[in-house]
Amino acid sequence: MLLLIPGPVQTRPEVRAAMAQDIAPWDVDFQRVYARIRERVLVIAGGTPGEHATLPLQGAGHFVTEATIRTFVAPGAKVLVPMNGAYAQRMARLAREAGRVVVELKLTDTRGATAADIMPALAADPDIGTVAMVFHETGSGIVNDAEGIGAALRGAGRRMILDAVSAFGALPFSLAAHPECDALVFTSGKCLEGMPGIGFAVARIDRTEACAGQAGSWSLDLSDVLAHAKRAGWGSIRFTPPVQAIAAFDVALDLYDAEGGQAARLARYRANTDALYDGIIGLGLRPYLAREHQGPVIVTVHQPADPRFDLMSFVEALKRRGVLISNFYNTAAPTMRIGAIGAITPDDMRRAVDAIGATLNEVLTKAA
Amino acid sequence: MLLLIPGPVQTRPEVRAAMAQDIAPWDVDFQRVYARIRERVLVIAGGTPGEHATLPLQGAGHFVTEATIRTFVAPGAKVLVPMNGAYAQRMARLAREAGRVVVELKLTDTRGATAADIMPALAADPDIGTVAMVFHETGSGIVNDAEGIGAALRGAGRRMILDAVSAFGALPFSLAAHPECDALVFTSGKCLEGMPGIGFAVARIDRTEACAGQAGSWSLDLSDVLAHAKRAGWGSIRFTPPVQAIAAFDVALDLYDAEGGQAARLARYRANTDALYDGIIGLGLRPYLAREHQGPVIVTVHQPADPRFDLMSFVEALKRRGVLISNFYNTAAPTMRIGAIGAITPDDMRRAVDAIGATLNEVLTKAA
Repeated sequence: MLLLIPGPVQTRPEVRAAMAQDIAPWDVDFQRVYARIRERVLVIAGGTPGEHATLPLQGAGHFVTEATIRTFVAPGAKVLVPMNGAYAQRMARLAREAGRVVVELKLTDTRGATAADIMPALAADPDIGTVAMVFHETGSGIVNDAEGIGAALRGAGRRMILDAVSAFGALPFSLAAHPECDALVFTSGKCLEGMPGIGFAVARIDRTEACAGQAGSWSLDLSDVLAHAKRAGWGSIRFTPPVQAIAAFDVALDLYDAEGGQAARLARYRANTDALYDGIIGLGLRPYLAREHQGPVIVTVHQPADPRFDLMSFVEALKRRGVLISNFYNTAAPTMRIGAIGAITPDDMRRAVDAIGATLNEVLTKAA
Repeated sequence: MLLLIPGPVQTRPEVRAAMAQDIAPWDVDFQRVYARIRERVLVIAGGTPGEHATLPLQGAGHFVTEATIRTFVAPGAKVLVPMNGAYAQRMARLAREAGRVVVELKLTDTRGATAADIMPALAADPDIGTVAMVFHETGSGIVNDAEGIGAALRGAGRRMILDAVSAFGALPFSLAAHPECDALVFTSGKCLEGMPGIGFAVARIDRTEACAGQAGSWSLDLSDVLAHAKRAGWGSIRFTPPVQAIAAFDVALDLYDAEGGQAARLARYRANTDALYDGIIGLGLRPYLAREHQGPVIVTVHQPADPRFDLMSFVEALKRRGVLISNFYNTAAPTMRIGAIGAITPDDMRRAVDAIGATLNEVLTKAA
């Protein structure tokens, strides 16, 4: 089965194999793995040792996103979220339910946000201290201009929180060049091609410590995650971690380095996306995004206008041909979501396009 | 290596093998596994279909404990925690940092709490609506009398939250017999012998719905976890789950049933504990708990008074003989923590006792 989903992604056999072992989470031999992962992730994030720290948090990506908002935005403080996709909506809800005041900036989900979109709203409201934004919007496949927005926020004396869950490891962003960024967050099972189960924030140490005491949740307090590491060592993770997923992540990072790191991974994902985008057009289908707004992670495609098309039946029929895509969508218009990340190649994408074409033929004929 | 730790425990090879696969979390074939796990867990909890629901939450056990407190105890409301161990302390901290008012009832960590310990404090303060308590205290190995305390709370019109993380599946407790219990919580990696990565609350549906809106955290809101399941189906889990750990948990539940369920598992753990307890005394060491207060999950043992004894060196030396115990303790006095749960037998415990004896001999001689 070829998994074409935006994560948890298809992994390499070596990564999966690392899951099948019992590990005592606090064992001194395994503590070296935790410490090593923190360092490797910091390098990928362009962080500066001593200025930035890798802070792991168990569970779904939403948990580490909420923890980051709770840690860096005070209760009752204002945070602006550029609203151009499903994950932006989720970020806004996470912040709102945590008692932060969310300023929603409505944008279209068919192109990435830029500084020009955001700065007028900030200029109009000096109480907005932080912009919390999604880097790659997994809902549609657009990329928000994190670098440009970051630079503008720096100039305006505002802070940034960057949800890089489906971007980290593929899209470039360097924390050292972005001191306005309090933290970027990501998970193990997306562009780094590990297994799901743990999230990470790479955060400024000074800000994490200055913000201690405002999370309002021990579980979701990144200041306490940092304090724990400083007390117990970087080889210790607070509370029981999904230790097998961490072992697998270490292997995934080996493969990432072997491939050539961020630039190589982005190039492969871009080639995957191009093959998919071109193939989709070749089938007479219509991508949701114009080519210039198409990111390198997921291609969303308008569902055929044919009334006989049903997404769930289509996905199941495609699965019988060995290709699994998402069985839901979260764009404004009905789409199919096809992932281009994971341990997959442009050849896989071409094979998938063939299968999509044959399946469309099958289901639209059958239903006729 | 023989893992003698209170979780994540040593698992069977079939359980570990289920970890080594890629799975799309929302795939319809896998949704049957989620739905089945919910039902199987409900049976073990003695819940009533339609009255109780299994609510999964990604991450460490502390997360689902905090979520349970947030969901069932209103912000600013009083919750009493019987304080007789490290996990009780953690429960109190989780509640306090979530803005609940914690009434700490100080007790010794060398015997389980009973209704007689708790009811006077409740009688003295009618504002305490809920008792949040640990079932098996992993810090020392004592068992709090959840059944007796539950019955007394029912009589007094108070609610109970039961942290059964290191008890569930081994110690008996039936939700149907305890309508005063809003929820019991546990994780996949303890007495059910699965892999770590996900926690569960088995909760009263009426109470979960009545308490909607007070969690103050979207991530940690069990009312929303329930609402999601009612909307999207019991075969859907909110947010990306650690899907491999769930696949492994399903296998672990097969093995649990094959062994004979709760009674058989408790009998094996009790036999493990007895073998360990007797063996420890045979070595001239002193268990931390009197025999009548010794639970069936973990045996804590006073560290030898010999000044040459160092816990970390001892644990590493014992590991070289193939047995891994905890390298920390959380009792009032310095102890060694030796787990008696997981895919292990009384013969394993006797082998471990021999290794402990030989290692003590080695490290105390070497250091001389």
